[in-house]
Amino acid sequence: MVTRRTGKLKVIPLGGLNEIGKNMTLFECGEEAVIVDCGVSFPEEDMLGIDLVIPDFSYCHEIRNKLKGIVLTHGHEDHIGALPYFLKEINIPIYGTRLTIGLVESKLREHGILNNVGRYYVNAGETIHLGRHFKVEFIHTNHSIADSAALAIKTPVGVVIHSGDFKVDYTPIDGEIINLRRFAELGGEGVLLFMCESTNVELPGYTLSEKSVGAKFDQIFRETPENRIMVATFSSNVHRIQQIMNSAYKYNRKVAVIGRSMSNVVKTAIELGYMTPPPNTLIDITEIGRYEDNRVVIVMTGSQGETMSALSRIAQNDHKQVDVRTGDKIIISASPIPGNEKAVYRLINDLLKKGAEVIYEGIMDVHVSGHARQEEIKLLHSLVKPEFFVPIHGEFKMLKTHARLAEDLGVNKKNVFVLGLGDVLELDRSRAKITGSVPTGQVFVDGLGVGDVGNIVIRDRRHLSQDGLMIVVVAMERNSGRVVSGPDIISRGFVYVRESEALMEGAREVVREALDMCEDRNITEWTYIKSLIKDTLKDYIWKKTKRSPMILPIIMDIV
Amino acid sequence: MVTRRTGKLKVIPLGGLNEIGKNMTLFECGEEAVIVDCGVSFPEEDMLGIDLVIPDFSYCHEIRNKLKGIVLTHGHEDHIGALPYFLKEINIPIYGTRLTIGLVESKLREHGILNNVGRYYVNAGETIHLGRHFKVEFIHTNHSIADSAALAIKTPVGVVIHSGDFKVDYTPIDGEIINLRRFAELGGEGVLLFMCESTNVELPGYTLSEKSVGAKFDQIFRETPENRIMVATFSSNVHRIQQIMNSAYKYNRKVAVIGRSMSNVVKTAIELGYMTPPPNTLIDITEIGRYEDNRVVIVMTGSQGETMSALSRIAQNDHKQVDVRTGDKIIISASPIPGNEKAVYRLINDLLKKGAEVIYEGIMDVHVSGHARQEEIKLLHSLVKPEFFVPIHGEFKMLKTHARLAEDLGVNKKNVFVLGLGDVLELDRSRAKITGSVPTGQVFVDGLGVGDVGNIVIRDRRHLSQDGLMIVVVAMERNSGRVVSGPDIISRGFVYVRESEALMEGAREVVREALDMCEDRNITEWTYIKSLIKDTLKDYIWKKTKRSPMILPIIMDIV
Repeated sequence: MVTRRTGKLKVIPLGGLNEIGKNMTLFECGEEAVIVDCGVSFPEEDMLGIDLVIPDFSYCHEIRNKLKGIVLTHGHEDHIGALPYFLKEINIPIYGTRLTIGLVESKLREHGILNNVGRYYVNAGETIHLGRHFKVEFIHTNHSIADSAALAIKTPVGVVIHSGDFKVDYTPIDGEIINLRRFAELGGEGVLLFMCESTNVELPGYTLSEKSVGAKFDQIFRETPENRIMVATFSSNVHRIQQIMNSAYKYNRKVAVIGRSMSNVVKTAIELGYMTPPPNTLIDITEIGRYEDNRVVIVMTGSQGETMSALSRIAQNDHKQVDVRTGDKIIISASPIPGNEKAVYRLINDLLKKGAEVIYEGIMDVHVSGHARQEEIKLLHSLVKPEFFVPIHGEFKMLKTHARLAEDLGVNKKNVFVLGLGDVLELDRSRAKITGSVPTGQVFVDGLGVGDVGNIVIRDRRHLSQDGLMIVVVAMERNSGRVVSGPDIISRGFVYVRESEALMEGAREVVREALDMCEDRNITEWTYIKSLIKDTLKDYIWKKTKRSPMILPIIMDIV
Repeated sequence: MVTRRTGKLKVIPLGGLNEIGKNMTLFECGEEAVIVDCGVSFPEEDMLGIDLVIPDFSYCHEIRNKLKGIVLTHGHEDHIGALPYFLKEINIPIYGTRLTIGLVESKLREHGILNNVGRYYVNAGETIHLGRHFKVEFIHTNHSIADSAALAIKTPVGVVIHSGDFKVDYTPIDGEIINLRRFAELGGEGVLLFMCESTNVELPGYTLSEKSVGAKFDQIFRETPENRIMVATFSSNVHRIQQIMNSAYKYNRKVAVIGRSMSNVVKTAIELGYMTPPPNTLIDITEIGRYEDNRVVIVMTGSQGETMSALSRIAQNDHKQVDVRTGDKIIISASPIPGNEKAVYRLINDLLKKGAEVIYEGIMDVHVSGHARQEEIKLLHSLVKPEFFVPIHGEFKMLKTHARLAEDLGVNKKNVFVLGLGDVLELDRSRAKITGSVPTGQVFVDGLGVGDVGNIVIRDRRHLSQDGLMIVVVAMERNSGRVVSGPDIISRGFVYVRESEALMEGAREVVREALDMCEDRNITEWTYIKSLIKDTLKDYIWKKTKRSPMILPIIMDIV
């Protein structure tokens, strides 16, 4: 069978592979292309000073004229967080469910670009047309944020199902179970490619229903007749917050929400009808003084031990409106995301020291994941029965595990592709092949700067963070090479100078000797003098301290 | 009852409370005192550039003449690692089991102080006399290092039992089960104070026997008839390494050990009889070329993803002697210590990408903890039945959990003390009370420096690591305030200068304006000029970038 070149579909992951976060996938067919999701990730430990990491958009610029729109699966940061940065560079319309678009809108408003961007609400079950080649159907799923969707992307060569993030919750808070029937129908009609998330693919069994957390809240509220209750969770977990409100209502407590992101989400979710506070339950934080401790619940962010979050500030006695009191019952309704464990434990220790009782994972199951485990993933695979399979959303070890699982479920081994970032998977009706790659990577956001902090800057920050720096300043007559002033030595982050005077005096001495030598031999070449100062001082400091601060020689030109 | 002041026992934790690591406890009675353990901890993420953290020894200096010796429970770094630093300051004899002292000796040799220090071997079951007041009996326990001991410290006011680190292993590799009978006897005779470790007190049930790991090794070796096997584990886990050798022998493989610390421990353990390699099993790493892949096992460190360890270097193709090949089976026989998760996952991803098969926690149980869980802790409590109880070795949340557990087991609530570092618990035959506190804390080791890096230096390193720095240099005639040269601006770790020329030119411009203003107004006060430069530049940079690099104004004095 001969297929025309334009009849092929290219699938290109621009993020979300071999890493957690910044999910973004490009689908390209002939002269048209669509993007699914546009997320951020949070900086790794060694990305010093970086605020956010976003995908590299250079290939999108290359095919800018083909781009028909961005389709969003749900409103989590790792799926929508990079949108403002993308849309400032390439302005194309965005499509998503009501809550997703609602959350994006407050983000665009903060960046001052809300009115420039075309935004379209899509209900689960609806199909949108993007150009001539792409039709995208939204399929309702369950996840730790309301209004999540999987996508059936209908292309000239076949149907692609993109799972988004999902779990199978038979008793979801909003009553809407993931639309398994629709996955089955599409599977029956024939699915070319399945792209499925891999977050929990290493875990056996099923993820528990969100409702199981509500039962725990009821139990804790019942067993806490006298004290105040605080709950920390993710601001985006609309259904979790709904359950806290339900338990509060049942046990006659008022709920106050603190923190900007939590208040924003609650406001948006209520406006759009995704959250329904029970009557007379929600109060403003300024009103809590009017109620007895056992009539109050305070909901906040900070479940990951983030330094600037409400709960961390409360634990440090550094919050304007709330303090911790002996007997407060504090529920941390979340698991530590890998990398945050120590910060979370530190937070728990601090709260306990203040006399609070803290309920966290391990003590009681006050959290469930939003991601499918093995049995749920197998269920979706069995309904979809795709020709080709690409595991997405996960570290390499998870993608590998997912690939093996797909093979066990009957996908032909040669039809399973563990892609890398930027890999171009080209498909026609019967074949798939990696045919090349496009430029990809990560771009650092630091303050207002996007991409101006690169590897050299990070390497310097790392060096400075380990051993600090020493600056040597000399004022010199350019022609004669005569030292007019200095050498002065200033250090920061190296040693506490007052207690290391002998060391610093020794440092000045070796630099002075090096400079004398240059004067004696009439050496006036600044590059040479600078590297001599650097090497001399480096050797001296290493010998004395076994440390290697950054050394910066500066020569001032005196005419 | 009146007790003479000298008849009281003071128990003072100098480390190991509210944190993991640097365990150290002081026991003081009249004019005599003994120390139990002297460990390091590894730097927290925010202790930039620090190599090790040791306890603050200032109270030990204060009572220097009372100190009779240091008694060691076992040879792990968090119990012996600070000894060289302590012994360089205060030279007193050390006491421990043979393997413990053997490991300490290679440490003292590295620091060049081996011959200055008095070292005494003690067998489990033996009692040593320290001064007139202290008799210390060593009791055999099980742990993830051989030759571990609990201590029964007999004092004029009663017996203190210090658990050290322990688990209850009914099938230990060396056949020696923890001496439960002796705990029972001492309990029967009456124990004043029990100090018990808390590492796994949050986990229900029992910790599995070390032998269960050997069964898994057997299974993996049996199922790997063709490929090479590598195992990464802690160098100090003598019994784990013994089991790897046993499985290798059974399946006709040779064992090579790589890495300095692993080779050191194996050498010491064999010399002292704690490890018995099966005949013709141990080979040198240089010999592996002579054997087929399926006849070789390589044992190494690096199970925590430590950057400089053997396994990390192998994963980066950066090891002199070993590379990773497709099909290699790599066993990571350890759990990630909290804080190391991401590094371990990165390592696993890298190895998988190189085509290796990696077996890690979650895939298969190839590790067991060395620490007792709840049921084992309850067992020891029930045998010891102390009058007073102090939980040790753990974060505050663990100490609290352990305190509650002790109360559940019948210790009077007012006899349970959750101590803080430096708290002085004073006991006589029937009463205990916190009567004060001594100076404690943590001292940073960085290169050769002990304690010369303090909070100011760390704060500067943190600032530098986040936004880098800008240096402004100006040469100025002191009397006239006339600028002779500059301002020059140099930055590091801030932005990539070549792509930010306009920003840097703008920065020079605002500094120049500030200097002009000073010249116009005849301001020659350097302190004022420096802080003007700093504030002006800071405002400019924040406005343009929303970043706050460290700003260092330097004025050179030209006569």
